[in-house]
Amino acid sequence: MSAPGIRMLPPGVASAQFERALAAWQSIVGSEHVLEGAALTPYLDPFAPGPEAAGFVPSAALQPGSVEEIRAILRVANEQRVPLWTVSTGRNYAYGGAAPRLTGSVVLDLQRMNRILEVDDKLAYALVEPGVSYFDLHNYLREHGHPLWVDPPAAGWGSVIGNTLERGFGYTAYGDHAATQCGMEVVLANGDVVRTGMGGIEIGHAWQLYQPGYGPSFDAMFMQSNYGIVTKMGLWLMPAPPAYLLGEIQFHDERDLEAIVEILRPLRLDETIRNYAVIEGGLRRAAGLAPRTQWYDGPGAMPDDAVDAMLKKLGVGYWNLHYALYGPPELIEARQKIVQRAFGTVPRASMSAKTYAGDAQPTGGGDRNQAGIPAMTAFRMLDWRGGAGAHIDFSPICPATGVDALRQYLMVKGRAASYGFDYYGGFTAGARHLHHIFAAIFDRNDAQQSERSADLLRALMSDARAAGYGEYRSHLVHMDYAAAQYTFNDGAMLRLAETVKDALDPAGILSPGKQGIWPKAWRGQRGYT
Amino acid sequence: MSAPGIRMLPPGVASAQFERALAAWQSIVGSEHVLEGAALTPYLDPFAPGPEAAGFVPSAALQPGSVEEIRAILRVANEQRVPLWTVSTGRNYAYGGAAPRLTGSVVLDLQRMNRILEVDDKLAYALVEPGVSYFDLHNYLREHGHPLWVDPPAAGWGSVIGNTLERGFGYTAYGDHAATQCGMEVVLANGDVVRTGMGGIEIGHAWQLYQPGYGPSFDAMFMQSNYGIVTKMGLWLMPAPPAYLLGEIQFHDERDLEAIVEILRPLRLDETIRNYAVIEGGLRRAAGLAPRTQWYDGPGAMPDDAVDAMLKKLGVGYWNLHYALYGPPELIEARQKIVQRAFGTVPRASMSAKTYAGDAQPTGGGDRNQAGIPAMTAFRMLDWRGGAGAHIDFSPICPATGVDALRQYLMVKGRAASYGFDYYGGFTAGARHLHHIFAAIFDRNDAQQSERSADLLRALMSDARAAGYGEYRSHLVHMDYAAAQYTFNDGAMLRLAETVKDALDPAGILSPGKQGIWPKAWRGQRGYT
Repeated sequence: MSAPGIRMLPPGVASAQFERALAAWQSIVGSEHVLEGAALTPYLDPFAPGPEAAGFVPSAALQPGSVEEIRAILRVANEQRVPLWTVSTGRNYAYGGAAPRLTGSVVLDLQRMNRILEVDDKLAYALVEPGVSYFDLHNYLREHGHPLWVDPPAAGWGSVIGNTLERGFGYTAYGDHAATQCGMEVVLANGDVVRTGMGGIEIGHAWQLYQPGYGPSFDAMFMQSNYGIVTKMGLWLMPAPPAYLLGEIQFHDERDLEAIVEILRPLRLDETIRNYAVIEGGLRRAAGLAPRTQWYDGPGAMPDDAVDAMLKKLGVGYWNLHYALYGPPELIEARQKIVQRAFGTVPRASMSAKTYAGDAQPTGGGDRNQAGIPAMTAFRMLDWRGGAGAHIDFSPICPATGVDALRQYLMVKGRAASYGFDYYGGFTAGARHLHHIFAAIFDRNDAQQSERSADLLRALMSDARAAGYGEYRSHLVHMDYAAAQYTFNDGAMLRLAETVKDALDPAGILSPGKQGIWPKAWRGQRGYT
Repeated sequence: MSAPGIRMLPPGVASAQFERALAAWQSIVGSEHVLEGAALTPYLDPFAPGPEAAGFVPSAALQPGSVEEIRAILRVANEQRVPLWTVSTGRNYAYGGAAPRLTGSVVLDLQRMNRILEVDDKLAYALVEPGVSYFDLHNYLREHGHPLWVDPPAAGWGSVIGNTLERGFGYTAYGDHAATQCGMEVVLANGDVVRTGMGGIEIGHAWQLYQPGYGPSFDAMFMQSNYGIVTKMGLWLMPAPPAYLLGEIQFHDERDLEAIVEILRPLRLDETIRNYAVIEGGLRRAAGLAPRTQWYDGPGAMPDDAVDAMLKKLGVGYWNLHYALYGPPELIEARQKIVQRAFGTVPRASMSAKTYAGDAQPTGGGDRNQAGIPAMTAFRMLDWRGGAGAHIDFSPICPATGVDALRQYLMVKGRAASYGFDYYGGFTAGARHLHHIFAAIFDRNDAQQSERSADLLRALMSDARAAGYGEYRSHLVHMDYAAAQYTFNDGAMLRLAETVKDALDPAGILSPGKQGIWPKAWRGQRGYT
């Protein structure tokens, strides 16, 4: 049943023991849903930045079809002490795809659990399983005539649950996915099934309506963690607005970033602009239009003058602000005037905007996300540098001040250049913080580029920490390193996280190493260089 | 040093052992901050609904002045196994004040830690200690010219931290206090000090800007729980708007409630109305204007015809919607037109509204909260029934649909009447849920009334659960009973909560019984009738 060649074993598990576990799982989920050997290719890190990441290899993958099957799988894993690495669908390639942090883990892939269990038009929410993607949910809403929008992340094929649990974000007024999550069903390591918040009330009416419930609220504890397997999740959906405006403002000076952030923040705070507006760097905007070789083919990062020439030629700003206004036309118009007045103070800023009826599709490409339409255009970045395009993302949280944004930008741009990488990035605007996202793009067939991308990320994390900034997320290969930057009181947060981990998962079977959290059984595996 | 009379001892603690603990605490915080005997009066339940609540009596109270003192207190408590009951200031009388759930616990009162550590105008947040009240913070902002509003709860004397941890709510666009909390410092039972979220980055810049951080987020787990002692908390503040409108709409038919909720929900969802609007029951509105004896002095609940006559005489609606619009005048005007159009469809609805400059004080009384000004007007309710006024609150979460609101209202009104209580209540509107708050008002010198209020609450909780509703909060005397309504999978949520409890507090010293969560050492104390 297994593919030929050397079989990877879970660490500390003998071959016969693993055979027993596999046999048990086959009887639970059916042998066609226990993958081994060559069938594990989708469970390798597709971009694998550096040699270490290439070593994150699973021993098998399981595709359960139900909560009951998951509970049965857990019984076997607990008995045989086999670590499981849970993914909803594992489609975020920039952070490791579906590959496990601990080599030899068995991937628990929930993609077959893909039902949309409920959609409520009045109260504007959905209840979904882990295998539901943003495309799936969007299409379902359209097909069934629900007047609701999804908030798509950069890549629409991602799992709604997976993206939310990793605290992904999108582009509409519901851009903060963790904040619009409401109610979870979670299977704990011991097989116990918990419904969070108001889900504790049986045959209740408020599981997807009120987030906290009675007593402590655990939902946020199941995000970016390894405390349980989320099998159902509620999310709030934005009622389709009667109309919307998509605006772009181009700024032509590198240092305009400071003014942009200073002008945008009060507009976000007073909700003139309610969406997760994006301040897109010129190079990222340009990369969607033409490949890099057209502008530069020398060594190292693209020089400033080449970038300037490219932006001019393409008619793209050094910074490009994308924002949206939703609502009835009279309110959109009044708010657009405020926006225009505010940004009109920046020299040479050029504005364009188009208003659409609520059910109309935008004609531009990159803005479709702001109209609640999932897309895969973000993948165009892979063509930028040529070869087998891949990327790894550096994603520090930036205070929403001009000084901080400019400081982070210059810091990242400079360090990236010294490693031979272009500044391919931008800022997505919450009200008080910005998600600063920088992608180190590399050719994954070029071993040196690949390794340097991982080294660059470590350097950026150190730079950031020294300046008082921290990442919100990390690739598998840097999970321990990123966690180690959170040093307050000698890492008190991680001590707390691991105390909770050991209480909920004493055998240490759920996703060891996830976000730097190691169960007692595997704590020796923590490591970074 | 102790007052004369019988000393209450912590359960399972011998007198000599307790003396040792007290002596140790006196050396830590100073003997003037260790309260015993008669000095414990402020730590009794001031309203004590029923004889059981009157028995929630502390053995002592400690008033530490710093995190270091708290850590030293915890060392003693762990050694001597003395349970501590933490309160920020203990000013919510409807849920038990500063009294402990487990009789004989030592109250850990944080009111002396009352510094406002930081206020940031640009990023619109504050960092405060537990002793800071809404009045304190409001006055500080005014005195120092910060262009920021607090979001006051019903009683302005409450602790900002205490109210937020209990998931209190207010009246402005920042009405969901738990949702606007950002960053905590928590002392765990073992004395470890954790800073949540971005607080793990030392000398960092985003602790009060981005809620989750890297890895699991624990903040919501420290709300309504007994997992730690919150010593610092960040909260987001609303930038003072350039103008605001306070609107009231009176509705004259009991059954208008259904239409009100159906009309209000879409306006809340599309953010035409951004504040926590209140649908106030007529009797509650009337109680602010004249005492009950003026209208009715018979036995039992006030009859419908007496209520009708009272409302007519006072010019008060059966339901009274209070809402606010914030922003520049042109946006307020456009949104007010939408509101007027929407509610104009309800027969006999009468609307009034007044627009104020952002720095102007409203002239009406009850609306000051919606303008970010703390008040104590809610305490007027104590005069309603005469005698030594007291109340206990029933607070189920209600889906934001007309059918659910009307159903809950009629259910509560009917059950209250059968116990001899008036329907004194209303609904505060989130977007997808309503906080339904009913106050059973009684004379605390009337033993029968007092006892019946506690019985009524139990009956209401059972009614609610049978109909699929659950409470968001509860008085000490009903904490176990309220928790027991959350029965999904045989109480899986409480099993999870107590697993975490035992991991974080193995000696069971922090607030045993809080929200129905009992540590292993005291689990036998769980009980309700």
